[in-house]
Amino acid sequence: MSIPFSRRKNKGSVFERQLIKMFWDVGWAASRIAGSGSSSFFSPDIIAGKNGRVVVIEAKTSSDKKKYLSLEEVNQLREYAGIFGAEAWISVKFKNNNVKFVSLNNVKNTSKSVVVSVDDPLLFSFEDLVKE
Amino acid sequence: MSIPFSRRKNKGSVFERQLIKMFWDVGWAASRIAGSGSSSFFSPDIIAGKNGRVVVIEAKTSSDKKKYLSLEEVNQLREYAGIFGAEAWISVKFKNNNVKFVSLNNVKNTSKSVVVSVDDPLLFSFEDLVKE
Repeated sequence: MSIPFSRRKNKGSVFERQLIKMFWDVGWAASRIAGSGSSSFFSPDIIAGKNGRVVVIEAKTSSDKKKYLSLEEVNQLREYAGIFGAEAWISVKFKNNNVKFVSLNNVKNTSKSVVVSVDDPLLFSFEDLVKE
Repeated sequence: MSIPFSRRKNKGSVFERQLIKMFWDVGWAASRIAGSGSSSFFSPDIIAGKNGRVVVIEAKTSSDKKKYLSLEEVNQLREYAGIFGAEAWISVKFKNNNVKFVSLNNVKNTSKSVVVSVDDPLLFSFEDLVKE
């Protein structure tokens, strides 16, 4: 049974708010971006920074062991980060509040999508991300 | 006669969208921040960046020759930019689509507020801001 879009969307914004709080709690500034998906210009879900280090993040939730993102979404994130001079990351919240991060430099492309697997050795914890 | 809050708010977001387009048109990446004012963490109205230069902006409109911002708002913007390692700017759209920018380093504080005057010699045009 598929989850209605409105519920999925809500789950996503709850996770985004969770990430924002995690960043502030460790002394970073972080914000959710307005209208990602609805604006005519691409925007990531989250931007966070500290002392000149800037990260832009697409935030996803998954009830499975893998999360697929479209190549288009990933390429737009890469382009946005490239202009900004920021790091591009994907964050996935898997089951049991298992929040992981993967750098766009380390994701695996298939022909049409990018997959983030819960057991990928290149995944970062939040602590790793902010201390990198 | 005072303008209803909803109309003022709408004017503000129209101006924010105008600014976003201006930045993209000159090759910057720019986004509106979600829920500034409603989130529990302070956020600026806009964040824009190019090649590692990051600017955060409070965007205001004025039908007068001056625009007042609360000290609290200005101080929060300054703090946010400080954590991020970003530049803090106020943008005011005066009458006749006269869009100006002032760096938070150059604003004049009164005891309770910050005032941006249309004839302030320290005001920047958009072209000056992006080439600085």
